[in-house]
Amino acid sequence: MTSAVVLLSGGLDSATVLALARNAGYTCYCLSIDYGQRHRAELDAAARVAQALGAREHRVVSVDLAAFGGSALTDLNIAVPTGGATTGIPITYVPARNTVMLSFALAWAEVLGARHIFFGANAVDYSGYPDCRPEYLAAFSAMANLATRRGVEGRGRLAIHTPLIAMTKGEIIRTGLDLGVDYALTWSCYDPGPRGEACGACDSCRLRLKGFAEAGAADPVVYSNRAAGTAPVGAGS
Amino acid sequence: MTSAVVLLSGGLDSATVLALARNAGYTCYCLSIDYGQRHRAELDAAARVAQALGAREHRVVSVDLAAFGGSALTDLNIAVPTGGATTGIPITYVPARNTVMLSFALAWAEVLGARHIFFGANAVDYSGYPDCRPEYLAAFSAMANLATRRGVEGRGRLAIHTPLIAMTKGEIIRTGLDLGVDYALTWSCYDPGPRGEACGACDSCRLRLKGFAEAGAADPVVYSNRAAGTAPVGAGS
Repeated sequence: MTSAVVLLSGGLDSATVLALARNAGYTCYCLSIDYGQRHRAELDAAARVAQALGAREHRVVSVDLAAFGGSALTDLNIAVPTGGATTGIPITYVPARNTVMLSFALAWAEVLGARHIFFGANAVDYSGYPDCRPEYLAAFSAMANLATRRGVEGRGRLAIHTPLIAMTKGEIIRTGLDLGVDYALTWSCYDPGPRGEACGACDSCRLRLKGFAEAGAADPVVYSNRAAGTAPVGAGS
Repeated sequence: MTSAVVLLSGGLDSATVLALARNAGYTCYCLSIDYGQRHRAELDAAARVAQALGAREHRVVSVDLAAFGGSALTDLNIAVPTGGATTGIPITYVPARNTVMLSFALAWAEVLGARHIFFGANAVDYSGYPDCRPEYLAAFSAMANLATRRGVEGRGRLAIHTPLIAMTKGEIIRTGLDLGVDYALTWSCYDPGPRGEACGACDSCRLRLKGFAEAGAADPVVYSNRAAGTAPVGAGS
């Protein structure tokens, strides 16, 4: 069996990526990054998803991105927007987050001797994050192949797989459902309520609800605020 | 004044880089990474150096590279070699360390709005680390310029400065001495003794001693074991 490091956030995208990697025959080492995000329900979801989808191992590594601030996801003084899509890069963008997360995946892959990294980046519904663009991912891959022993010793290229890159949210959900992913285990909301319910209004909830609507499927997650934004097609039904 | 993030390890290379950046007129935000290294005296040295060389701010960010193991610098079960230079990549190489550290510098630079990062990589006495090579650094720079808001919004390229890249250790030390760096504040040893003295035998001590010999200067650091390896020319004199 070929080993792969799978970045697992606990959201629906990375759960789908794990299902795809397992289905392709990889032994999956799942890596979650505790970067001080305010929506820590994600990390609990990642543990559930790793277990349910047969990961060989699941590690949570702590980094201190909150020390730098600058994002609504790591700085409690910046409010999570709930007004729907805007132009430009949203305030929920975490500076250099994907670069930091991929760097950790690279470190673990090197220690494991793995040459495959799976990452749920998506360029369709990517909310304007610079580090979800295909040109960024290609540049990271080029850098990664020079960064490690593998690059020096010529033991085959490291591959960064982004199987969701060109899928719509609806296609991602349909793919996962076909592979048996239980999306009740996943978590997407940036700003959950006091009883752990999803807000239904943040960008991430809106994208998720739109995706389930596109997939013609029911979202099993409980929402507190279905009135705002996207119609909750199928949600909870 | 133009702001720059300076990666500061506490060793003599990064102290010299800080002195060069200050001398060039940058306002310096120094960043040290606590990556679980066994030679934690480095972090104390970094704080001393930042203060002595007029950094605007010094932050230490913790990351958990030790969770992955794989290096004599982060895994207590792997001995630090003291037998002098070998061929290939040494066991003191920390997987993806420079990629992780530069990623953090990138994150802080983005939050600060800084477009300059200073890093003491060196390709002459680099001990065979893949992530000190110029081609790696060029690839990181290309990636970094696609990773952040700056890359999307076209607000000028991010520059990664590696002023030591082509210098010998002796040239680095001579440069720093000319700028008034007090190398007594710095720390290089991978395997210090019980009273905090440098071992004089690890790769890092050997390179340092060789550098002071080349520079024709005295190394003010105290060594416990001057017999092994490089002759301690000028050390402590």
